[in-house]
Amino acid sequence: MNRLKEDLIEAGKFGREPRRRVERYAELDPEKGVSRPEGTPANRQIRDFAVERMKAAGLSVQIDKFGNIFGTIPGMQADCGGVMCGSHLESVLNGGQFDGALGVFAAIEAIRRIQEDGFQNERAIEVVAFTGEEGSAFGQGLLGSSALCGKLSQSEALSVTNAENKSLAEVLKQTGYNGDFERELDNVDYFVEMHIEQGPVLDSAQIPLGIVENITGVAWITATIKGIENHAGTTPMNMRQDALVAAAEVVSFVRRRADAIAAQYGSPTVATVGRLEVFPNGINVIPGKVRLGIDIRDVRKKIMQHLMDDTGEMLKGLESIHGVAVQVQIPPVHDPVPLSPDLVQTIEAAAQKAGVQYLKMNSGAGHDAQIMAGRVKAGMIFVPSKNGVSHSPLEWTDWEDIEKGLRVLTQTLKDLSV
Amino acid sequence: MNRLKEDLIEAGKFGREPRRRVERYAELDPEKGVSRPEGTPANRQIRDFAVERMKAAGLSVQIDKFGNIFGTIPGMQADCGGVMCGSHLESVLNGGQFDGALGVFAAIEAIRRIQEDGFQNERAIEVVAFTGEEGSAFGQGLLGSSALCGKLSQSEALSVTNAENKSLAEVLKQTGYNGDFERELDNVDYFVEMHIEQGPVLDSAQIPLGIVENITGVAWITATIKGIENHAGTTPMNMRQDALVAAAEVVSFVRRRADAIAAQYGSPTVATVGRLEVFPNGINVIPGKVRLGIDIRDVRKKIMQHLMDDTGEMLKGLESIHGVAVQVQIPPVHDPVPLSPDLVQTIEAAAQKAGVQYLKMNSGAGHDAQIMAGRVKAGMIFVPSKNGVSHSPLEWTDWEDIEKGLRVLTQTLKDLSV
Repeated sequence: MNRLKEDLIEAGKFGREPRRRVERYAELDPEKGVSRPEGTPANRQIRDFAVERMKAAGLSVQIDKFGNIFGTIPGMQADCGGVMCGSHLESVLNGGQFDGALGVFAAIEAIRRIQEDGFQNERAIEVVAFTGEEGSAFGQGLLGSSALCGKLSQSEALSVTNAENKSLAEVLKQTGYNGDFERELDNVDYFVEMHIEQGPVLDSAQIPLGIVENITGVAWITATIKGIENHAGTTPMNMRQDALVAAAEVVSFVRRRADAIAAQYGSPTVATVGRLEVFPNGINVIPGKVRLGIDIRDVRKKIMQHLMDDTGEMLKGLESIHGVAVQVQIPPVHDPVPLSPDLVQTIEAAAQKAGVQYLKMNSGAGHDAQIMAGRVKAGMIFVPSKNGVSHSPLEWTDWEDIEKGLRVLTQTLKDLSV
Repeated sequence: MNRLKEDLIEAGKFGREPRRRVERYAELDPEKGVSRPEGTPANRQIRDFAVERMKAAGLSVQIDKFGNIFGTIPGMQADCGGVMCGSHLESVLNGGQFDGALGVFAAIEAIRRIQEDGFQNERAIEVVAFTGEEGSAFGQGLLGSSALCGKLSQSEALSVTNAENKSLAEVLKQTGYNGDFERELDNVDYFVEMHIEQGPVLDSAQIPLGIVENITGVAWITATIKGIENHAGTTPMNMRQDALVAAAEVVSFVRRRADAIAAQYGSPTVATVGRLEVFPNGINVIPGKVRLGIDIRDVRKKIMQHLMDDTGEMLKGLESIHGVAVQVQIPPVHDPVPLSPDLVQTIEAAAQKAGVQYLKMNSGAGHDAQIMAGRVKAGMIFVPSKNGVSHSPLEWTDWEDIEKGLRVLTQTLKDLSV
């Protein structure tokens, strides 16, 4: 454990914020977060460090065109499909030190332990650090895994641009991680990702380990509600078309309906109005326009669709009730992804062998594993997030919980690679 | 009429926007609005033009320390209190051409007509153009009238600062309108202000004239609702403290309660949540904080207080229902101001003489007349605003309605000054 803790503490120094960046953390910020989007010096530093640790552990390291880093130890049987294990090194702005990095450095440590135990792995074991997992920099996440799995073409993946209008190809060139390794997945059978939960389920249940059965689907609905902007003092109540009064009903509806559907189906449905902007937003002006964004998730496609349909109908209904005009946009929906039941069993057995209490659960956030699941048998191991906080300097996982997760990961890799 | 129309068209060129300024007008902007806050070249231009028109009409013009412009014709009786009539020349950013300016140029034209009619006015008649009526530039409005009436001390009035951190004293110096006239109100008995309604009441009733009985009181309540910011995907519905879900209930409550109170008391109560900001405002983040601003108005203090109390109680109640923390701030309340019943009668009689249909009504917006009412008998004449729109390039009043208002104003000044 000490080696993984040392690696993570060292890795956690790269991109460590020198100061508070954003108002949202004003009340929350006793510690500073890490910022290492692709293309930044901090991103190059943590990549260099991970490569150095891989090499020190005896892995042979290669970089593909998308900046994905692969570090491999061969198996006894060259013709068996390998076991891939890892996550990402990128972080959001002012994020936490374990999000992604934990899964890469835990994989390296697991291989060190496997080797030290003198364990004879039949299959090759390969650490992977995926490029551009967070959607925050390029507006679209899971870039490295999607390119690897062929869900994005080479040109699609490399041409996405960040806020500075630089393409992924350019920022990879900048950090020197534009490799030429052509990784095919034909000789890979399994993928395992260890990650922080980023939610409160394990922490509040005081259970140190989660075994992920499904990764949630995600649908976004954005709506523009147009009323009539007018003077708040001179416009009688019965002569108003107030866009915010209409929008407030949407917020209440989404909450109430998600609660009801979750109860009705016993499903982990969540729905949130996270974004809402009022125009012109003056205290003495009747709102003429509101833009809002709704996030709907479930591990069952049908239930997600049900809630989306209800919400769409409710939005259209505002027109006759409030005399407003409603425009709705729905970007492509990400369907729920079931992970491999075989791997759930394998991880469960490994947790039992390791004597670690666990909970089978779903992931409410997206992960590279959901992309890998399209090509190989994929599984995920969660460790608790203190108070469910992530994408924040206050993200935290206790070292004892990391050790438990690592023991289960190591056992899982052993069991898969025999 | 043609002279007033010419004056207004000429005055409407000063500060005419060369282009759209703000997103809020994107859908609405076939014409460009006017921008002439105090201190701008456009503000100096319209002041110079008004002074020129006053002098051409034979008025003797003086400027006081607060930039208020006074143009007077003497009365036959030097020992009678005078009749003051006017409004303001300042505009909001991208506002309408009649808001304020109409009252100043209509007063000048009324005096021209009175003189041409050979009418012998016993009392002096005085046009006034007040400084800084709009709150938009200095965060506080009604500056010139408040200073004139002693509601603000000289140093209070001159030290208010605008967004560029310039004091009113500085911007008046900049435009050369820092006079030294010491206007006392001891020899003034009446004040009459003609203004656009800025609301839809006259336009929708198709009545060309309003006689104002009361100017509404205004109370603002600002509240900060703090919940817990968290991941919209990984936080189950029953583990949330969503600040926006709580805020949405405030928006719905304010609307519903204002409707109910207006119905219960038959009062022109209005209440609006015009401002609402969500933090961090990401579609996939549970809102951790919402700031909102509520505007409550009535012409009866007691009803306004009733609605304020209900709203305050509702805001505190959110804490136990939603597990949020609520902070409430209430800046000083502006009490409702009744205008002079004598002047309402005088204007009513003048409208009947002039054969102009009228409606007795209240003003939902603040005006210099409410300040003057603290020192002299004050009255207001409204003309219709097309579709109730104001503080917008689309503000409009038909020329025929302006002529009707002008005829009533002229008759009123005659009747008051005999």
